[in-house]
Amino acid sequence: MVRPKKIVVIGGVAGGMSAATRLRRLDETAHILVLERSGYVSYANCGLPYHLSETIEKRSLLILQNPITLGARFNLDVRVRHEVLSIDRQSKTVTIYDRVWKVTYVEKYDYLVLSPGAKATMPEGPDAKWILAMRTVEDMDKAIAWLYPNPEHAVILGGGFIGLELAENLIKRGMKVTLIHRGKQLLSYLDPELAIAVAQRVRASGVDLRLESSITSFTRNSVTLADGEVISTDVIFSALGVKPEVHLAEEAGLKIGHNGGIWVDNEQRTSDPNIFAVGDAAEKIDAISGDERLATLAGLANRHGHSVANAIAGARTVPATPTLGTSILSFDGLVAATVGWSEKALRAAGRPVRVIHTHPADHAAYYPGAQTMRFKLMVDPETDLILGAQAVGGHGVDKRIDVISTAIFAGITASDLAQLELAYDPQHGSAKDPINMLGYVNRNIAEGLTKVIEWHELDSALDSGAVLVDVRTEGEYKYGHIEGSLSFPIDVLREHIRELSGQKVVVYCQVGQRGHTAARILAQEGIDVVNLNGGYLTWKAGMASKGDQK
Amino acid sequence: MVRPKKIVVIGGVAGGMSAATRLRRLDETAHILVLERSGYVSYANCGLPYHLSETIEKRSLLILQNPITLGARFNLDVRVRHEVLSIDRQSKTVTIYDRVWKVTYVEKYDYLVLSPGAKATMPEGPDAKWILAMRTVEDMDKAIAWLYPNPEHAVILGGGFIGLELAENLIKRGMKVTLIHRGKQLLSYLDPELAIAVAQRVRASGVDLRLESSITSFTRNSVTLADGEVISTDVIFSALGVKPEVHLAEEAGLKIGHNGGIWVDNEQRTSDPNIFAVGDAAEKIDAISGDERLATLAGLANRHGHSVANAIAGARTVPATPTLGTSILSFDGLVAATVGWSEKALRAAGRPVRVIHTHPADHAAYYPGAQTMRFKLMVDPETDLILGAQAVGGHGVDKRIDVISTAIFAGITASDLAQLELAYDPQHGSAKDPINMLGYVNRNIAEGLTKVIEWHELDSALDSGAVLVDVRTEGEYKYGHIEGSLSFPIDVLREHIRELSGQKVVVYCQVGQRGHTAARILAQEGIDVVNLNGGYLTWKAGMASKGDQK
Repeated sequence: MVRPKKIVVIGGVAGGMSAATRLRRLDETAHILVLERSGYVSYANCGLPYHLSETIEKRSLLILQNPITLGARFNLDVRVRHEVLSIDRQSKTVTIYDRVWKVTYVEKYDYLVLSPGAKATMPEGPDAKWILAMRTVEDMDKAIAWLYPNPEHAVILGGGFIGLELAENLIKRGMKVTLIHRGKQLLSYLDPELAIAVAQRVRASGVDLRLESSITSFTRNSVTLADGEVISTDVIFSALGVKPEVHLAEEAGLKIGHNGGIWVDNEQRTSDPNIFAVGDAAEKIDAISGDERLATLAGLANRHGHSVANAIAGARTVPATPTLGTSILSFDGLVAATVGWSEKALRAAGRPVRVIHTHPADHAAYYPGAQTMRFKLMVDPETDLILGAQAVGGHGVDKRIDVISTAIFAGITASDLAQLELAYDPQHGSAKDPINMLGYVNRNIAEGLTKVIEWHELDSALDSGAVLVDVRTEGEYKYGHIEGSLSFPIDVLREHIRELSGQKVVVYCQVGQRGHTAARILAQEGIDVVNLNGGYLTWKAGMASKGDQK
Repeated sequence: MVRPKKIVVIGGVAGGMSAATRLRRLDETAHILVLERSGYVSYANCGLPYHLSETIEKRSLLILQNPITLGARFNLDVRVRHEVLSIDRQSKTVTIYDRVWKVTYVEKYDYLVLSPGAKATMPEGPDAKWILAMRTVEDMDKAIAWLYPNPEHAVILGGGFIGLELAENLIKRGMKVTLIHRGKQLLSYLDPELAIAVAQRVRASGVDLRLESSITSFTRNSVTLADGEVISTDVIFSALGVKPEVHLAEEAGLKIGHNGGIWVDNEQRTSDPNIFAVGDAAEKIDAISGDERLATLAGLANRHGHSVANAIAGARTVPATPTLGTSILSFDGLVAATVGWSEKALRAAGRPVRVIHTHPADHAAYYPGAQTMRFKLMVDPETDLILGAQAVGGHGVDKRIDVISTAIFAGITASDLAQLELAYDPQHGSAKDPINMLGYVNRNIAEGLTKVIEWHELDSALDSGAVLVDVRTEGEYKYGHIEGSLSFPIDVLREHIRELSGQKVVVYCQVGQRGHTAARILAQEGIDVVNLNGGYLTWKAGMASKGDQK
């Protein structure tokens, strides 16, 4: 009889627990030991901020499993409040500190799975102990206790996912919130003309948002900003981002990747063949560049955990798919989602990019409740492959990003998007879905049917003498237009051809669609014309993003 | 100078109008004449039923364009209430009847685009003129007039999309509704265990639903059913389906396809190279079988119209993509959607199929508002390619069907679904999205890790002596279980291994997930075990669908 394998898993959330439970389904005899430093395993860490406002009313909903239930169902040996102090790769042992009984002991392993997660970056200083975080159930419990007396004001350091979710929930609790964010814009994976919509919603919800701002010092009840301003507050939350938790791996001599995460191969194996790593602590491969990167995504952690179990059990493994960095944030009804790369990241990397801006409604405009989204697609102009997409809006944003993510994974082209046959009824889409429209617009640009100009290129086009023509209605023009533009509504544009002939012309409408028709009318008359990509709305958002750096 | 082309388009909705407007963007000089028999072009036919209940409040919202606006923007010559009587292919002319001025005249064409749509099947009889339909704006206006005195009761003939949408909106108006449907189930493209959920919701909304029922005669105020029952009513709507409108094409000697639609090549060209056909009147190619079929989808009509314009203008054309028959229906908050083929259609065609049943929530269960859907995937067991999917639920059904549609189009495998990186936050998904779960379950079945049995195979398995084990909790078991099953909750299942060893065992849980874990526990002990696919919920729905044929 074969001796049962012994597997030690460090970290009992997401990746670690996926590995452990999958492994049990593959191997009924293995001894599977899960060591978790905190008091909880398998909790819903993405849900924690929502308990602060009682949007998620019951704390118990966030704690999906515990050592007893996992023991019963999966015959796992789960030990919470057990911290691994070190790994000895020679003897294949880990040294463990039992935080309850305060004893140290050693366990052997055949395979070790590292799923230690990431460590929150916390501000340092004499009053650091007063700063709250939101990574673990314990963090949440502590925050709930602090918020019990209903303090008035909170400072949140950092405007990433956690910072924004905290802001939403503290506002919902009735607090005043100051959000301090180092970057020029929120959500750095978005391009500025989309990110501005998030900042606008955050401000509209009542948050005092400070961009390009950071603190130089803090006390229990105040923070001092770089410009000297002192903000008094009742509680301070830190949401400054995370770093891979790699000290155990590093001390054990495992290879560390370029971005500070644990290096793994495409089966999640570290530089030691008996040790695997998954989740936020492990490096990933970027799907667009092929380079190593970090990505703190629960879905990836679970998938990689699954994969590790297959590798250990000798089942067929599926090589880890490179990550697209798909992510989504909800804030007070606004949804911002992304997949792949942004325009600015592509340009910074020197990659050529074709950009498409649209402003579709999530479903047929004639059916009640339609919500407009800002949608942007990045395309490789040589291969027509999709490099990224981002959308900000309400309903239906998640759906379109998921379709694009599937399209990128499958390697279909941007023009192929026009061919997708998506489910349409007036409640859920349009006969030409926003996804189809991206495909049509992409092909029109790719084939040179319409030439476009980006919002950030308009000034230099006008400087070089182009005439700017607003083809919207007179009413729209009066309500707001780009300075210096002529008003030739599309429905009478043909009457103005003589005035425009021989000139360089930039046309624009509200979102780009009438501009396309206008550009086609003029181009066929031999006029050198470009259409402002995304129309007045994209231009206006772009301009606002330039002015929104404080 | 080249003589401008003259293009005549017959039918000014969806496909016809897409062709006309695209053509103008490609060719500013062409004479584009659009002939529409009804009084309206470019109206939102999918929205018509919703005006009956004033869900769509304003009639004007449904009429997107008119001859004046289309003339101004696209320089189209649009003539409503103009019916084409015949096509003369030799002289390249059409004979037109002007229904307003009651005159007949002839127009020449260089290219002709047929977009006549489909004809509603109407019951025949002396009182046929009293039957209402819902295809055109005129139909809707007539219905609104009839419903003005607020009659109490309506009979709807036919339970397809239009019939169900009519039922929803008449109920919402406060009417009593009897819906008479010939088939054994609603929405024949769904398998019965999913369709039953639609019938249940239809009945719960107050509709008197008669399945396997049809009328033998009718008067203005009553219908007589095949079993002799007479139902008195105030208004009768016919929604018995549609047939391609091909009489003009047929009389002109154009080739008609196997399903009674106009035959076209993959550029939408009919058997006459100067005549194109699009929309409901044209045959399509089925993506799964490669055979000709019909499909009345607005998205296809638009796409094919676009393509015809490219062909006529000499722009690069994209061959028509075969159709997946993607469709979606909303009824009183319930959403039923499908793509590709059903299990029953595949089995009827003799094609091997692997089936997956799941019952996921649309988003993380711990976040408020999660709605469960019934989800089914059909997979080719040899290639692992996806053959179809169907889902019935609420939020998020449309998204998952769109992702699957994209996956089928792109040709990725069912197992690949596990690798898709979809946007996750607690409001929009789960760390393992329902789509990812289908991929995992598919691989577990494909690799033989779990053997499954379908709900309709259970009886014969039990007849051949298998032991049925319910692995849910005792509480769930008490609340309802399959007759004759033992209750061995999964968390104590390992204690019952001795009792089961040497037996053939069928395990089941609520949805199939705990059943999978249970099957793995028993299989590893050498027990011959299968898991009931989709669990108790799928089995119960399947049984209900068998009993629901009246």
